[in-house]
Amino acid sequence: MIFPKKIKIRDVTLRDGMQNEPVFVETEHKINKIKDLIDAGFDRVEVTSFVHPKWVPAMRDADLLGQNLPMVPGVEYEALVPNQRGLDRFLKSKIGNAVFFLSASTKHNEANLNKCTDESLKKIKSLVEKTKIEGRRVIGAISTAFVCPFSGHVPYSEVERIAGDLVTFGVDELGLGDTIGKAAPRQVYEYCSRLAEKFPDIPIGLHLHDTYGFGLANVMAGIQAGVHLVDVAQAGLGGCPYAPGAPGNVQASRVVEFLELQNIKTGLNLERLKQLDRSFSQLLRDTEALTKTLQG
Amino acid sequence: MIFPKKIKIRDVTLRDGMQNEPVFVETEHKINKIKDLIDAGFDRVEVTSFVHPKWVPAMRDADLLGQNLPMVPGVEYEALVPNQRGLDRFLKSKIGNAVFFLSASTKHNEANLNKCTDESLKKIKSLVEKTKIEGRRVIGAISTAFVCPFSGHVPYSEVERIAGDLVTFGVDELGLGDTIGKAAPRQVYEYCSRLAEKFPDIPIGLHLHDTYGFGLANVMAGIQAGVHLVDVAQAGLGGCPYAPGAPGNVQASRVVEFLELQNIKTGLNLERLKQLDRSFSQLLRDTEALTKTLQG
Repeated sequence: MIFPKKIKIRDVTLRDGMQNEPVFVETEHKINKIKDLIDAGFDRVEVTSFVHPKWVPAMRDADLLGQNLPMVPGVEYEALVPNQRGLDRFLKSKIGNAVFFLSASTKHNEANLNKCTDESLKKIKSLVEKTKIEGRRVIGAISTAFVCPFSGHVPYSEVERIAGDLVTFGVDELGLGDTIGKAAPRQVYEYCSRLAEKFPDIPIGLHLHDTYGFGLANVMAGIQAGVHLVDVAQAGLGGCPYAPGAPGNVQASRVVEFLELQNIKTGLNLERLKQLDRSFSQLLRDTEALTKTLQG
Repeated sequence: MIFPKKIKIRDVTLRDGMQNEPVFVETEHKINKIKDLIDAGFDRVEVTSFVHPKWVPAMRDADLLGQNLPMVPGVEYEALVPNQRGLDRFLKSKIGNAVFFLSASTKHNEANLNKCTDESLKKIKSLVEKTKIEGRRVIGAISTAFVCPFSGHVPYSEVERIAGDLVTFGVDELGLGDTIGKAAPRQVYEYCSRLAEKFPDIPIGLHLHDTYGFGLANVMAGIQAGVHLVDVAQAGLGGCPYAPGAPGNVQASRVVEFLELQNIKTGLNLERLKQLDRSFSQLLRDTEALTKTLQG
């Protein structure tokens, strides 16, 4: 096994951690939390998604948030950009990195984005070009890169084909998502190491869910395969909102403690992450209580 | 990474899974559960401990259980044997494998066995000799092989020294225990691979607790290091009895699903393991309710 000296950890709490929450957290609270994340040591923070507010109400303040982010040297923000309208909004924001996304599984892509993967790729090609012209960084994110909730096992050939297109379009970085948490280390290791070999100049990030408790084992498998970055969420948010406590994204404090015990540095402050576990959970509880009061 | 075709899984539910439970499960129920374990495909089952009933009331039926086990070709039973009195009882049982145990950390050994590791080793030497004469198999189990709850990090040199003594005494197999679940994959990989290199003829088993969710990652690290066997408990039993639902030993159904997804065969039936998760939890609930009724 290999144990690198360090690995980059990206926070996705405000995006994937919250996008399915049935409540809207005020922009002001989100900005305070972003400051806390930076204080804890994060320099990559995915803050929102420029989707239509009708689809993801929790992100309806993307414009306001994106224009009022604290600008800190060395800190990169990123946001999901689903289409031209989203790109127009993104380009007016202070967010440096655009994440263009699709699913490796056509069935999931159709369910999620209402088009086949080839249509998504065609659209992403044009969005990447426009974004690069504006001097922003571009990340190509592949969801259901291992297992699809509808069609099961996703073949590696499909992931490589999509990744190859994204690299040709000019993405600066690739991300592979285990959207339903059902990938096991063997698959993570095989897909990531083959991609890393195929595209040696493109950093690969790993987005893991801990649905079945495979998260940390997959972090290690990704590291063995040479991935550069791992996504985390505070308090392990990002599970199903209708199953309280259900595991979501791999939990920041747990991943960091796990890596630091192995002398793999993350640049993050574990004590602050433990505080963030509590403060994010509290923020969601408070917001939920307030929402109920206002509705009632 | 390496992905072997198969790995041996040993069930320890009736011993480590239950020894801290505040209730006594009737021998008859234990025997039914052992039959269920064998039906699910287990051929290594740790069934009890010949400790003094005063210390572990849950195992007070070790003699009765050990004399009434269903004898099934190919199935090996094992039991913990702490001393000469325990060995006398063990030798009257139908259990084939004796597990002699001590802690790699002297502080833990003193707290648990009331002697230093060297005294334990001296005693184990004589017990191993007597057991081998009787034609039984002998396993040397090293607790707190990675981290001690009292003194923290356990140096590899100490584990190798103890393992070396056990091998010299004639044990057929070694077991390393992450007693408090605080080992991370790097340490598991390093200790197991160095031991496997040092003692190439001695199979090594790994006993993991999932206290911090590191269990499955450590299973993979052990496999990378060449361990032959992994301990599991049904329903993940073996946590602190005063913290219901606290993770204990790594959970059989979860480990097996995790390995089978990686095409690493275990010979176990996943559906039966899921039934066992439920039936073991139910058995403990029923026993607890009955105990309360009898006490009340």
